Amino acid sequence: MAETERTLDIAVLGAGTVGSQVIRILQEQGEDLAARAGARLQVVKVLVRNPDAPRDVPLDPGLLTTDAAEAIDGRDLVIELIGGIEPARTYVLRALRQGISVVTGNKALLAAHGPELYEAAAASDADLYYEAAVAGAVPVVYGLRESLAGDRVTRVLGIVNGTTNFILDAMATEGASYADALARAQELGFAEADPTADVEGLDAAAKCAILASLAFHTRVGIDDVAVEGITSLTAEDMREAAFFSRAVKLLAIAERRIGEDGHEGVSVRVHPALVPLDHPLASVNGAFNAVVVEGEAAGRLMFYGQGAGGAPTASAVLSDVVAAASHRVHGGHAPRESVYAHLPILDPGSARTRYQMRLRVEDRLGVLSEVANIFARHGVSIQSVHQRDGQGIGQAVIVIATHVAREADLQAVAHALSQSPAVREVASTIRMEGD
Amino acid sequence: MAETERTLDIAVLGAGTVGSQVIRILQEQGEDLAARAGARLQVVKVLVRNPDAPRDVPLDPGLLTTDAAEAIDGRDLVIELIGGIEPARTYVLRALRQGISVVTGNKALLAAHGPELYEAAAASDADLYYEAAVAGAVPVVYGLRESLAGDRVTRVLGIVNGTTNFILDAMATEGASYADALARAQELGFAEADPTADVEGLDAAAKCAILASLAFHTRVGIDDVAVEGITSLTAEDMREAAFFSRAVKLLAIAERRIGEDGHEGVSVRVHPALVPLDHPLASVNGAFNAVVVEGEAAGRLMFYGQGAGGAPTASAVLSDVVAAASHRVHGGHAPRESVYAHLPILDPGSARTRYQMRLRVEDRLGVLSEVANIFARHGVSIQSVHQRDGQGIGQAVIVIATHVAREADLQAVAHALSQSPAVREVASTIRMEGD
Repeated sequence: MAETERTLDIAVLGAGTVGSQVIRILQEQGEDLAARAGARLQVVKVLVRNPDAPRDVPLDPGLLTTDAAEAIDGRDLVIELIGGIEPARTYVLRALRQGISVVTGNKALLAAHGPELYEAAAASDADLYYEAAVAGAVPVVYGLRESLAGDRVTRVLGIVNGTTNFILDAMATEGASYADALARAQELGFAEADPTADVEGLDAAAKCAILASLAFHTRVGIDDVAVEGITSLTAEDMREAAFFSRAVKLLAIAERRIGEDGHEGVSVRVHPALVPLDHPLASVNGAFNAVVVEGEAAGRLMFYGQGAGGAPTASAVLSDVVAAASHRVHGGHAPRESVYAHLPILDPGSARTRYQMRLRVEDRLGVLSEVANIFARHGVSIQSVHQRDGQGIGQAVIVIATHVAREADLQAVAHALSQSPAVREVASTIRMEGD
Repeated sequence: MAETERTLDIAVLGAGTVGSQVIRILQEQGEDLAARAGARLQVVKVLVRNPDAPRDVPLDPGLLTTDAAEAIDGRDLVIELIGGIEPARTYVLRALRQGISVVTGNKALLAAHGPELYEAAAASDADLYYEAAVAGAVPVVYGLRESLAGDRVTRVLGIVNGTTNFILDAMATEGASYADALARAQELGFAEADPTADVEGLDAAAKCAILASLAFHTRVGIDDVAVEGITSLTAEDMREAAFFSRAVKLLAIAERRIGEDGHEGVSVRVHPALVPLDHPLASVNGAFNAVVVEGEAAGRLMFYGQGAGGAPTASAVLSDVVAAASHRVHGGHAPRESVYAHLPILDPGSARTRYQMRLRVEDRLGVLSEVANIFARHGVSIQSVHQRDGQGIGQAVIVIATHVAREADLQAVAHALSQSPAVREVASTIRMEGD
C-alpha cells in the first residue's frame, strides 16, 4: 500500500443527493482513495439544515452539525454541496481564508463570484476545484484546465443541461408537445417543480460562462451570455428537424473570433440549435451531457458522460478531492485562475450563425419572390427553400435555411418577414450549428 | 501577464511529424504557454539522426545535434518523440536519473518498460508524462489518472488505432475488400508500408496495456493482452454487420471482474467486435479515436478526438509539457505510478463475450438441429438464428448470435462446428460488445 499514515479531515457542507453519495463512497472506498491521495480521507463533520431530516444514505448522527464554523474551521478540506449563492459563498470564503482547500459543485456561485473565490484561494495557497459544477461527471473542467493547456481553444460547444436534453429527446422520439414532455420530465424527477432555470437556459448559461472563462483565459460572467431557452419549441419543429436529418439540442456555445472592430473577442450564447445527425453531439441523448472542444492543434475533442445524478456527480467531486488531498500531502496546487488574455465580450448581434425559418405565407404567385427579396435586402443568403402543404385555405408553409450570416441581420430578416403582408406568421426560427 | 521571468530549457528528441509540430507551437504560442506554465519554454537542443534531412518545419541549424548527451544533460525538460524501445529507453532514463522531467509519446516503451521508467522518475522526483502515447489528442491518460481518481473503474473500451478504424470504415461504407481498403489507406498515408503492427492489433495491445495499468492500478504488459487483428475480416462481414444494425470496430477492452477462482482480476484483450449502432463508439469514424470508461459512480464516460497526426499529437505533448513545467516552477509533481491493487491477469479463455458466427451448411432438413445441438453441448445459449440464401447448390448460410458465454466455450463451439459434417465452413466468428 502507498503511504497512508496521514489523515486529512474533511467537512461536507450539505447532505443531499450528491453529498450523501460523496460520504458513502468516501467510506466504502476508503482504502482505494487513500492509496491514490496519499492520506486517509476522513469525514469529520457534515453541515446540515435539519439533523433529523430523512436521508438517502444513513449518517452517523455524531457527524451532523448545523453550525458552519464548527463544520469548517481547522479542516484540511471542505466539500461544498449546498448550492446557490448564499450562504455557500460565505462558507467557501471562510474555508479558503483559513488556507483550507475547497471542492465545490456550485455553478451559480462560480459564475457569479468566481474571481473573488480564486483570489481568496491564491492568497492563502489553498486549492479551489469545481469539476462537478459543469456537466456532472463529464471531465471537461480538467479537459480545459489541463488537457488543452498546450493548445489554443477556438470553440466550445456543449450540451450541458440534462433536463432540457431529456425534454427535447421526448419531443423528438415521441412527438410530444413541450408541455407534455416537461410534465413527464417532472414526473420522472428529471425536471424540478419550478423548471425555469433549466428550460429558460439559465443553468446552461452559468456553465457556459465557466467554460468560456477556462477556454479563453478571460473573465466571463453569466450576464455576458446571450440566452434563449426551449419553451417556444414545438412538436412541428422536431418533425422539421428530422426531415432535414438534424436533431434539436440546447447548446452552450463559446467562441473566440475576430469582432467587427477587427479585434479578437469572445462570443458566448445559449440557444436551441439544429445539429446534423452525423455530428457527435446529435446522438447525445437523455440525461447525458457532452462538450465538444475545438483546439487549433488538437482539432475536435469531445467529453461525454452523465450530466447529473448523485453518484456521477459524486465521482467528479471525489476526483477533485483526491487531487486536493494529494497536494496537501505532496505539495503543489491546483491550476490557478489563468486569466491573462482579457479578451472583450463580443456583441451578441455580431455572432455568425445560420437560421432555419418556418413561415406561413399567402398561397399565391409572387410570394416567394417577396420573401426572398426581404432576405436579399438584409444581405442574408438563402441556402435552401422547401414548400410544405399549408394547413389552411389559401396558405402555404415554406421552410428556409440561410447561409452563415450575422445574428443581427438574421433577426432583422425575421422582423421584416413578420411585418410583410405576404407572411401570415413566422412560425419558428431555429439556429443551425455544427456544420 | 503571469510571472514569466524564469526560462525552462527544453530538449526535443526527434524532429519528425510530431516533433516538428511541437517545436513550431512552442515558438508560435510562446506567450500563451509561458502564461500557463509560469515560465518561458525554450527549445535549446533538438536531437536528430541526420541534421541535413529535409523537414516539414524549418529548424534553426544551431539547435540540431546528433549527440544525445549534449541534447539531454542539464535540461529542465526532455520531450522524447523518437519512438521504439532503443535508444529511446536509454535517453529517457538518462534524463530521469538527472531529475529532468520527461514527456513522451512512446507507447511501445511504456508498455514494455513502464515500471522501470516510473521508478527512475520517482527516485529523482522528476515527472513522467505520456498523454500522447495513447490515442493521440484524446485526453484519456488524464481522464484515468485524474478525472477518475475518485471512482472505481470497471471497464475500458476503446477505439485506439486510427489505421484499422480507417480501413474498417472504408470496408463498411464502400464495400471494399480488406486488401483494397488497406491499399487505399497506404496511398493516403493512413497506413504504413509494413502495416503489421496496426492490422494485427499490436499497436492497440500496447495502448490497452497502458490503459489497463492506469485503470486498475495493476501492472499490465503487452504480453498480457490477448490479441486478434482485422486481417481476416471480409466485405461480407461488413454487410452482415449492417444488416444487424452494428458496426465492426477493432476494440481494446480492459475489464475488472471476478475470475473463475472467485477472485477479482483483470481481463485485457484486443479484437474486432460488432458494436450496436446506438453505442457511442459506433459512430467514431475514420482516423478518430475514442475511449469509453465505465466507473462505478460515474457510469459511462467517453473521451473522443483525433488519434494521430502531427498537430493533434503535439497538442497532447504540450499539455504534458505545461504541467511538467508548472511543477518545476510551483512545486508538486505528476501523479506517481499508482500500482497498489496487484490484481491477477485473468485467463483469456475465461473472458465473457458473445459471438456472431456465419456458417455455410448443407441445405437439408435437420442441419439446424445438429448445429444447435453443438451449441447446447458446450453450454452456449443461442440468441438468434438467421438463414441466408446460399451462394452454391445444396448450400445454405446461417448467421447465429449467441448469448453471453465464456470465450473458451465459444471457441470450443467454433471448433466443433468446423469438424461437423453438417457444416461446410465456419465463414466468420466476430465477437459482439457494447450491449
